Amino acid sequence: VASDTRDRLIKATGRLLRSHGYAGTGLNQVTAEAKAPRGSMYFHFPGGKEELAAAALDRFADRVTQRLEERLASSSTVADAVAGYFDDVAAVLERRRFADGCAVGTVSLEASPTHDALADATRRALQTWTKLFADALEAEGRSPDEAHGLATVVVAAIEGSLVVAKGQRSVDPVVTIGDTLRPLLQPPNA
Amino acid sequence: VASDTRDRLIKATGRLLRSHGYAGTGLNQVTAEAKAPRGSMYFHFPGGKEELAAAALDRFADRVTQRLEERLASSSTVADAVAGYFDDVAAVLERRRFADGCAVGTVSLEASPTHDALADATRRALQTWTKLFADALEAEGRSPDEAHGLATVVVAAIEGSLVVAKGQRSVDPVVTIGDTLRPLLQPPNA
Repeated sequence: VASDTRDRLIKATGRLLRSHGYAGTGLNQVTAEAKAPRGSMYFHFPGGKEELAAAALDRFADRVTQRLEERLASSSTVADAVAGYFDDVAAVLERRRFADGCAVGTVSLEASPTHDALADATRRALQTWTKLFADALEAEGRSPDEAHGLATVVVAAIEGSLVVAKGQRSVDPVVTIGDTLRPLLQPPNA
Repeated sequence: VASDTRDRLIKATGRLLRSHGYAGTGLNQVTAEAKAPRGSMYFHFPGGKEELAAAALDRFADRVTQRLEERLASSSTVADAVAGYFDDVAAVLERRRFADGCAVGTVSLEASPTHDALADATRRALQTWTKLFADALEAEGRSPDEAHGLATVVVAAIEGSLVVAKGQRSVDPVVTIGDTLRPLLQPPNA
């Protein structure tokens, strides 16, 4: 049915954005991977590639938000949740031989400055993740300013860990960054 | 003369990689921006676009290394040098309206996993920068392990700050990250 096609287009685009970025994602490849007729793309996304990519970024961001919420809910401290998330990042990079990653991070660097709809999507994602960590850090007794500062560092460290790991084809930096940041995130009264 | 053309090709490619990434950098655009005849590209870079991009990454990395060395030499602590470098990053992003950035970071995310020559260049750059900070942190009295861990965080935080700033079209996160990391970098005996 039609909505399945839409869904497959969004999922295929998300996968391609994570490994090749926006400029490197071709519409022929999207429709081939989604097993969708070429015409279906413009039926579901009249705005073309940019509208489809923005929808894929929103979908990807929601999935990451859900995983972060699960990690925070199942960990006794934010420090534990962040450490666990760095483990997840390392596992995904190894399993996919560094061809996977964060669609939001890749698009932020190579396309969002020149594409308004993409910038709206990357901004929404980064603000949502930062607020999620900031709220959790405030709940541990930090001031709003301190919580926001640390949350910004956590999101930047996750994105930066993908850069240094993919750029060196090694997960060692991800583990090192997780371990080194841990003391910074210890709850104030622990 | 010929070496001028080679130089202009490398510089134009570096600029394009920083704003559009590897897939988004077209050879027509490179030769147009370099004011070089199309044939000169294959004369100087018989390996084509990937060889040219690897040379541009090496050139860009050398320039960043030089600036980091200058910052470290003119600052009384590594913490000051890093804070100064975050100020530089924020200034460049504002001046170029987020269209500038780090060629190594962008290519690491969208192209190095699938292009061996690019991965060699991004690895060299990231290892050089990490070692530069690690050596300076060791000179301040940290153990090699601690220095390496903190240096890895600094490089990832710089790269990650570009992601979150460009993705939100705001330099606020760069300033926040610089301020928040500062205590982590204070010399052990200060």
